[in-house]
Amino acid sequence: MPPLGAPARAEQLATLAGLAHERATAPELGSLLEDLRELEEGAEPESFGASVVRVARRDYEKRRRVPSDLRAEMARAGSLAYTAWLEARSAADYEIFRPHLEHRLDLIRAYVACHEPYDDPYDVLLDDHERGMKTADVAAIFARLKAELVPLVAGIAEPVDDSCLHGHFPREQQRAFSLEMLSRWGMDDQAWRLDDTVHPFAVGLSESDIRLTTRFDLDNLGGILSCLHEFGHGVYERQVDARYFRTPLQEGTSSSFHESQSRLWENVVGRSLSTWRFFYPRLQETFPEQLGPVPLEKFHRALNRVAPGVIRVDADEVTYSLHIVLRFELERELLAGAVTPADLPEAFIAKLGEYLGVAPANFVEGVLQDVHWSDSNFGYFPTYALGNVISVQLWERATGELGDLDGEFERGEFGSLREWLREHVHRWGRVFEPAELLRRVVGGPLDAEPYLAYLRAKVEALESG
Amino acid sequence: MPPLGAPARAEQLATLAGLAHERATAPELGSLLEDLRELEEGAEPESFGASVVRVARRDYEKRRRVPSDLRAEMARAGSLAYTAWLEARSAADYEIFRPHLEHRLDLIRAYVACHEPYDDPYDVLLDDHERGMKTADVAAIFARLKAELVPLVAGIAEPVDDSCLHGHFPREQQRAFSLEMLSRWGMDDQAWRLDDTVHPFAVGLSESDIRLTTRFDLDNLGGILSCLHEFGHGVYERQVDARYFRTPLQEGTSSSFHESQSRLWENVVGRSLSTWRFFYPRLQETFPEQLGPVPLEKFHRALNRVAPGVIRVDADEVTYSLHIVLRFELERELLAGAVTPADLPEAFIAKLGEYLGVAPANFVEGVLQDVHWSDSNFGYFPTYALGNVISVQLWERATGELGDLDGEFERGEFGSLREWLREHVHRWGRVFEPAELLRRVVGGPLDAEPYLAYLRAKVEALESG
Repeated sequence: MPPLGAPARAEQLATLAGLAHERATAPELGSLLEDLRELEEGAEPESFGASVVRVARRDYEKRRRVPSDLRAEMARAGSLAYTAWLEARSAADYEIFRPHLEHRLDLIRAYVACHEPYDDPYDVLLDDHERGMKTADVAAIFARLKAELVPLVAGIAEPVDDSCLHGHFPREQQRAFSLEMLSRWGMDDQAWRLDDTVHPFAVGLSESDIRLTTRFDLDNLGGILSCLHEFGHGVYERQVDARYFRTPLQEGTSSSFHESQSRLWENVVGRSLSTWRFFYPRLQETFPEQLGPVPLEKFHRALNRVAPGVIRVDADEVTYSLHIVLRFELERELLAGAVTPADLPEAFIAKLGEYLGVAPANFVEGVLQDVHWSDSNFGYFPTYALGNVISVQLWERATGELGDLDGEFERGEFGSLREWLREHVHRWGRVFEPAELLRRVVGGPLDAEPYLAYLRAKVEALESG
Repeated sequence: MPPLGAPARAEQLATLAGLAHERATAPELGSLLEDLRELEEGAEPESFGASVVRVARRDYEKRRRVPSDLRAEMARAGSLAYTAWLEARSAADYEIFRPHLEHRLDLIRAYVACHEPYDDPYDVLLDDHERGMKTADVAAIFARLKAELVPLVAGIAEPVDDSCLHGHFPREQQRAFSLEMLSRWGMDDQAWRLDDTVHPFAVGLSESDIRLTTRFDLDNLGGILSCLHEFGHGVYERQVDARYFRTPLQEGTSSSFHESQSRLWENVVGRSLSTWRFFYPRLQETFPEQLGPVPLEKFHRALNRVAPGVIRVDADEVTYSLHIVLRFELERELLAGAVTPADLPEAFIAKLGEYLGVAPANFVEGVLQDVHWSDSNFGYFPTYALGNVISVQLWERATGELGDLDGEFERGEFGSLREWLREHVHRWGRVFEPAELLRRVVGGPLDAEPYLAYLRAKVEALESG
């Protein structure tokens, strides 16, 4: 967008948000949902009809607490804050962004106040992404992560050598290889596309129209990993029951569950030795000069390198969740007023040092590194780390039922895992709330232990290599 | 879009079209407009307030004749027909497209019937793009064009050599040169963008957010001309009075007027010798190997080459309008049932031979060459040729008032013309209907003669060169 377009876009987004909110909270919709209560109560809770009505009513009941004007103003402020964030980054000047964060914080507080009573104001925000989840439960999980991971990270000696992932890798070949890998995993050209972008994402316009985007850098292989990540999001949307199209059930059930899928495919599958036993010879054929001399084990260790850094999106599996814990804590403190936007840059730096032992070179690398505080609401960040936790819970359950999948992966077969996920997770869309879905699949609540054990094993393997 | 996404998109577009139509035709809107009648009648017709109400009421009154269901079905059918058109082209099989055209023709007839009484059914369609314009007036203009241009084209001996426009022209350099040229014309990077695409277009998201797209081919310079064309559309939207933002006045007044701007800048200015006296040395610096040895006059003659061909979008200025006359006649005959979709490919070929003396190699080059019959309504094609006619009427008037602009163009100055267009055309947005605007600016109605004289002079110059 050209710079002068920003105010117009903010107005347009505000209008759309306000109008959409008006429709979503119209009293007639409430009456229609009331009329359907009998149908809902007479059907099995998991049935299509009962689920559509139940989920639509919960959406309606939460939304109607919020005035359309506030919704519109939140959209307007987010759009303007996003532009200010871009400017602040390019000027490396946090002060350009600060007044926008202050205004957004006022709006977030007003939004939270619409939902009284609550146990914790942050519950309101979390619930937008993780229906039913409580801040206290997240805090408990995150306390476990912090207690285990801070010393684990601090104890890492020399990070492994990952120079084989850097060099000269023409984009077209990275793209061709990624497509080959994803097609083995279940992507096809009838219902999927992969395009180029600055910020990778995945979106399902219908269950038969899955768009992935990625960015291939000429000097490293990160774009391939990013494809594997977006595949996880895409396959979730692809495998939702097609009957749910254009109903409130059509999406993944929560941000954490969505993230669990991207992490499962990117990390648990996509960084495993068995997966690369199949794909690495193909990657070597694609880049014979760069990777021909590099043995599989060295490549695999490089993929799993652990090294604390400043930037969240560049973080490895072990350090990643600590970046999230930091943001979760700061969001709660901002909301409570214990930290102000003026304090935020220093508070950010302090926590980075405390949890990861690193210091940003400037505000762009620090508090301005993420887009989320400009145009998303608070409450989203935690879902990234919860996704990590869930991904390993699901993986343990899947391999418990399917048996060891290494043999299949080594033969380039990924269908068992993909179909297991379809059956137990994907096809249900939003029929079950996240905690309920997790309990149905793994038999219990959120549990950080499998994830922590998985990370400890990863670090041990690296250290002993 | 992946192929399986097409049905979902059709449903989504139908829903949006239906909902938008419901809002645009809501009885409450009619009552509000009635309440404003007094305000309208008490103000000068050109005033902001009176104009908004008048234009909004006319939009409302036309739209409310059409049921939302029909509007939604037209959107659905257009979306599916577009996909079928793509398939038909890639299979070179018109039969894949024919049933879609038949269904769309039924819908167009149903749409026309909503507007009874009318002098000519085609008036209803034309009026969607050229408010108030009558088919009989277009037919009279087009009869003049045909009577003059068919013999003029037939009389052209050998087309001039335009080989200097073909060769090897790296895209990035074409892009940099185009940006330099457009910035001389008035594009800036605060309110404009130029991006790459398959099908060039221009869109104004606000008067401060003008997006142009183009396609640069490695083997010819056509992408530069396409930029000049889109600039004309862009500068119209850019110079609409900023107060009209988000009102019904915000756009150019009609498709013909819009096209007159793109043609004026692409053809009248963009193919003139004086313009290239300034820019050609810069183009030669950009492509010294390819154009260094080519004198300006040779380049200029190549730019103005006339040669009948099969493809409308590749047509030169002299033959272009005949492609449009052909389509206008076929649309009227289809609507009247005088030609059926089954007859269309042969009828298309017959007229191409009669008017231009050329024959397509296959259906892709013939009846399947344009997207318009898949997803636009009939009545749009004529506006391209009317734009040509208007462009020269405006040019005569502008140079009549401003004097000969050659001296300015040779110095790289284009501001007088641009500001004249702002003052007399652009800033008014939709305040005046197209015939009224034309009368205000040039003092009379549509008149093919200036355009025909301009084309005859062009052909004479080429023939005598």
